[in-house]
Amino acid sequence: MATVDRWLLPDGIEEVLPPEAARIEAARRQVLDLFQRWGYDFVVTPHIEYLESLLTGAGQDLDLRTFKVTDPQSGHLMGFRADITPQVARIDAHTLRREGPNRLCYAGSVLHAKPRALSTSRSPIQLGAELYGDASPASDVEVISLMLEMLELAAVPDVHMDLGHVGIYRGLAKAAGLSGEAERDLFDALQRKAVDEVAQLTEGLPHELASMLRSLAELCGGREVLDLAQGVLMDAPTEVHRALDELIAIADALELRYPELPLYFDLGELRGYRYHTGVVFAAFVPGVGQSIAQGGRYDDIGADFGRARPATGFSTDLKTLVTLGNMALDQPAPGVWAPDSRDPYLWYEVKRLRADGQRVVQALPGQEVASATEADCDRQLVLRDGRWQVAALS
Amino acid sequence: MATVDRWLLPDGIEEVLPPEAARIEAARRQVLDLFQRWGYDFVVTPHIEYLESLLTGAGQDLDLRTFKVTDPQSGHLMGFRADITPQVARIDAHTLRREGPNRLCYAGSVLHAKPRALSTSRSPIQLGAELYGDASPASDVEVISLMLEMLELAAVPDVHMDLGHVGIYRGLAKAAGLSGEAERDLFDALQRKAVDEVAQLTEGLPHELASMLRSLAELCGGREVLDLAQGVLMDAPTEVHRALDELIAIADALELRYPELPLYFDLGELRGYRYHTGVVFAAFVPGVGQSIAQGGRYDDIGADFGRARPATGFSTDLKTLVTLGNMALDQPAPGVWAPDSRDPYLWYEVKRLRADGQRVVQALPGQEVASATEADCDRQLVLRDGRWQVAALS
Repeated sequence: MATVDRWLLPDGIEEVLPPEAARIEAARRQVLDLFQRWGYDFVVTPHIEYLESLLTGAGQDLDLRTFKVTDPQSGHLMGFRADITPQVARIDAHTLRREGPNRLCYAGSVLHAKPRALSTSRSPIQLGAELYGDASPASDVEVISLMLEMLELAAVPDVHMDLGHVGIYRGLAKAAGLSGEAERDLFDALQRKAVDEVAQLTEGLPHELASMLRSLAELCGGREVLDLAQGVLMDAPTEVHRALDELIAIADALELRYPELPLYFDLGELRGYRYHTGVVFAAFVPGVGQSIAQGGRYDDIGADFGRARPATGFSTDLKTLVTLGNMALDQPAPGVWAPDSRDPYLWYEVKRLRADGQRVVQALPGQEVASATEADCDRQLVLRDGRWQVAALS
Repeated sequence: MATVDRWLLPDGIEEVLPPEAARIEAARRQVLDLFQRWGYDFVVTPHIEYLESLLTGAGQDLDLRTFKVTDPQSGHLMGFRADITPQVARIDAHTLRREGPNRLCYAGSVLHAKPRALSTSRSPIQLGAELYGDASPASDVEVISLMLEMLELAAVPDVHMDLGHVGIYRGLAKAAGLSGEAERDLFDALQRKAVDEVAQLTEGLPHELASMLRSLAELCGGREVLDLAQGVLMDAPTEVHRALDELIAIADALELRYPELPLYFDLGELRGYRYHTGVVFAAFVPGVGQSIAQGGRYDDIGADFGRARPATGFSTDLKTLVTLGNMALDQPAPGVWAPDSRDPYLWYEVKRLRADGQRVVQALPGQEVASATEADCDRQLVLRDGRWQVAALS
């Protein structure tokens, strides 16, 4: 590698420079403080784990996105976290072992060997909140509400929400006896709304089920979709009706809390998260193809760690949140410039100002007060009447 | 892997659970705010980079500690950061390209394929500050002072400082014509204070240089060591005298600022950081073998990125800092318990309390007020006289 290339970063891997980094840090604190006010306890998960723990319950897409490496200590295969949710589920299921509902939140970098979509970052800063131990829609409503409050805090304009429920497709596919590859192929076709392909893949199925499965690709739109679905899916198995009822309960609660929020429903949308088991949701803003925050219910992961627990939660990328939002982020106040002097009384005054919360930048040998502005200072320490005093920049 | 083992973490890889995680987060904020008050701008460096960029100027020990993986996008070898300092040097040298002194700070996880020492974490949270663009001891004094203020903020008791200067050994080794393996072997023997080995390795050298090199293993102790060194190294090359003068200037300034701080000098100590070029320093506490914070001058790294810049800085592990210190970390105040009710007026009151900075935990279906204490609440919302009011837990 030539010297000139040594500073190049791999595609999709970013660094954050001043002053943007200070904004990211300020946003991180505000969002974590919001989570804390909702009763969510902060956890720090490791960046690397045994691959089997990382991928437990998570499915193939996470596997493809995970960087793998052999642990020189144990010889086991390890992976760099590409998602934090399964790690937090492990902590809830195994490490904390709390009885009753448990609220956890986190913030940290994840790495994707392959980007989620073209030109998507491979190094997002994932922030999220998870609620364990309660299977009712009340938990889903809580985490969706928290996600919306986070977007409001981040001042993201024109948010709309997409809601779906993987139980509807799962219930129909199960009733149709689909499993393994056949279920996955149909799932993929539905995701892409490839209507012809869906028709082809459901050809051999009992007429009624095939027609219900086909209808999923078209059951998308406003609230009316839920009424429509109740008709179209009338003869679906109980599991499907339970899913639909949950979705309606969640929609009702959200409409009550956020009457201005545009809600869209998509019964063929499964968010690409193979570990989800119930409601799935995502927030979008106009002009951005990828969701800005997303989540859903995933009741089965805990079982793989030896303790099945209902679970629901969401995550976002902090960098995207700050870019798309207009968050009120305090810029550091201008500082005080101190001259290059070894006078202990100057040092004492500098210490005092800093202890007082002021930013003080001390000149290095050869630096004149002309450098003060560049260091974002608007005042200086000067020796007047025998003592160091803060004065305007001359 | 059996279900029961899926939750095991690799040796030396840790997670942080509540309430410890909240303490770590609070400490992180306090230390970063301290750095900010000293004029250090926050940067976020990537967790993964091309290996050549990561290891530039850093030497073999970092190479051995770095996890490596092939980038599926580019086919290039990448590494997970095992140290953040070289990344920040790259940002200063190439990306920011500021003229004059530049102060940067950072906080983030690093990963070590091999632990630094037996039973040391392989996943420390590295926090540090770096000062670029000034070659004078004033910069070293500034970063050492900031490191000491950080340890004071973290309330780490009984700190003592070790100071050395790699220029002394380098100057002597160069005069003796040592390079490559021979220089490294002698360096290692000096580090281990293996006096016999040092004697053996210097046998063939000119008598005077051999005797000066041997003396390094014994030039350790209090301030008197510096006076002693001036005698013992009288006939050393200019480079060695310049190094010694720098060390004395730094010691003088620190004694003026921190008269109570125990200072130790060790002219054969090279801190194991092969990229250092000048003063090296480390803070220790009694009973802990590893340094709790450490740093030094490393003027040559920038050159590898196409722009040579003087540089000095330090780093610490946030988890160690919190464990060994007695930092004043606010525990979150007890919260308010809200019953499980869909009353919109309750939601309104909950929102109001949270906007006010209060922590409010809402009951999930089936949860009674008896769960409030477990959720760390000491008050509850009750409906009295037709409105929701905060009351003591009954």
